[in-house]
Amino acid sequence: MDGARFEPQDPAFAERVRASFGKQGAMHTIGATLGEVAPGRVVIELAWQQGLTQQHGFLHAGIVATALDSACGYAASSLMAADAGILTIEFKINLLAPAKGQRFRMEGTVLKPGRTITVVEGRAIALDDGREKLVATMNATMMAITGRDGIKH
Amino acid sequence: MDGARFEPQDPAFAERVRASFGKQGAMHTIGATLGEVAPGRVVIELAWQQGLTQQHGFLHAGIVATALDSACGYAASSLMAADAGILTIEFKINLLAPAKGQRFRMEGTVLKPGRTITVVEGRAIALDDGREKLVATMNATMMAITGRDGIKH
Amino acid sequence: MDGARFEPQDPAFAERVRASFGKQGAMHTIGATLGEVAPGRVVIELAWQQGLTQQHGFLHAGIVATALDSACGYAASSLMAADAGILTIEFKINLLAPAKGQRFRMEGTVLKPGRTITVVEGRAIALDDGREKLVATMNATMMAITGRDGIKH
Amino acid sequence: MDGARFEPQDPAFAERVRASFGKQGAMHTIGATLGEVAPGRVVIELAWQQGLTQQHGFLHAGIVATALDSACGYAASSLMAADAGILTIEFKINLLAPAKGQRFRMEGTVLKPGRTITVVEGRAIALDDGREKLVATMNATMMAITGRDGIKH
Repeated sequence: MDGARFEPQDPAFAERVRASFGKQGAMHTIGATLGEVAPGRVVIELAWQQGLTQQHGFLHAGIVATALDSACGYAASSLMAADAGILTIEFKINLLAPAKGQRFRMEGTVLKPGRTITVVEGRAIALDDGREKLVATMNATMMAITGRDGIKH
Repeated sequence: MDGARFEPQDPAFAERVRASFGKQGAMHTIGATLGEVAPGRVVIELAWQQGLTQQHGFLHAGIVATALDSACGYAASSLMAADAGILTIEFKINLLAPAKGQRFRMEGTVLKPGRTITVVEGRAIALDDGREKLVATMNATMMAITGRDGIKH
Repeated sequence: MDGARFEPQDPAFAERVRASFGKQGAMHTIGATLGEVAPGRVVIELAWQQGLTQQHGFLHAGIVATALDSACGYAASSLMAADAGILTIEFKINLLAPAKGQRFRMEGTVLKPGRTITVVEGRAIALDDGREKLVATMNATMMAITGRDGIKH
Repeated sequence: MDGARFEPQDPAFAERVRASFGKQGAMHTIGATLGEVAPGRVVIELAWQQGLTQQHGFLHAGIVATALDSACGYAASSLMAADAGILTIEFKINLLAPAKGQRFRMEGTVLKPGRTITVVEGRAIALDDGREKLVATMNATMMAITGRDGIKH
């Protein structure tokens, strides 16, 4: 798995991913920014803020999931055809430790691309006082949608 | 399962849940409000807004997950001892249909309570032009934490 | 969801499901038998035996999953076209209690049918000294496959 | 994550794991054998046979899950105290490709050990005509049980 490299179908995949990310109101609301956009791999960055917390002041598990889901979705999208839309079918997230930190890096990496179904793994890493810690892991199934109005990219 | 009724350990569970919900910055940010709080069952309500969307204008899967995770967590918490904190260990969400609608109702219902581990089911229902539609289902594992500083309720 | 009724596309769905079940070597090996086969709902039954246990003498979680996966897969298959094959994309199982009992009933019920993707819920019920107990719950994503050699029904 | 090394609490962990594996009737029935047993990592091997198939002749998804669940459970158990029993709380499996092959290698690797909860990742690799292929990935949550009769190792 490590070192797997994928060939993008759409040479303009990075622009397509960045344009689609810009339309996600949720990413704007949580203050997430797009980092690396490579074939089969997308990184999203996020800073802690009070408005993203659960009751103990950690990042809310759902916010971790929100940023990871986008990272995983765009990792899948980066390998799809130019006209394919993408929808999350399902994901599972394991919270390994409280999401405590100043900044968070959400990494989505394609495990198995496919014409219809793409399986992606996500990792959420907290940066807490200069130390990195894996705080969550995601397994997501993404589906390519073509020819349906209103669902593009 | 249907019709299962649970006996709360803490008679003040509803006040405890409401106070904890009030501390979740993420719930405030997404505009979620707490509806029903019953033993083993909690409902959270949410209105669509541009700031919660993915790229097609539907509610972002992660935002659906965020509200469902809180509903499931508080459903579990409602059955716990007064001094127990609660953490999400993991959840899985299946997105059955695009989360299209004006309002959303997130229902968390305990399937199996336990001293340490509680398993909860969540359902996300979209209200779209007066019609109700099940758009997502969640399965979550919650853990009771006692005696750890900084993790209460 | 409860009381949802589905219309089968293939009037001969039950014969098709029964014939396919008969080809599953794994069902024969674990001694599973097919019970109810209705549109969107399939039940599989199983007796405890030493050869199906984990180290404490309970039914192995994987064996619970094996029978539940078949129940969920055939529940999905019952609603598909006559020439569609079916593959499990993913499932998640929560083990709510040790699978202790003399007999087990595995129920698969379609939550959301679809042309390509069908989402199914499974429940494993143990019959232990005349008492019924829910011991596991499954959430599964099934995919219809058409036109691929070697993958039929 | 790669290269993570764990310190076992119980120096006799490998003997303990091997003895427990020997008590799993299900492993005997499916013909699984124990390979590598290292701190936080356990490998189980399995040969294809007709009695383990689904309807297309591939290894049944549930049988893949059964062997992976044992690999993951013992990977967790290898890091636990000598008197701790272990139970699977939940797992999720993604089937990336049909489990086609002559032999299968199931790898369980601990991602995050804990006093009560241990999270483990599993990988199922098919050996098909001399080629290796990743056919499934698992994410499992294991729980240490102490002081409960009938649940040891």
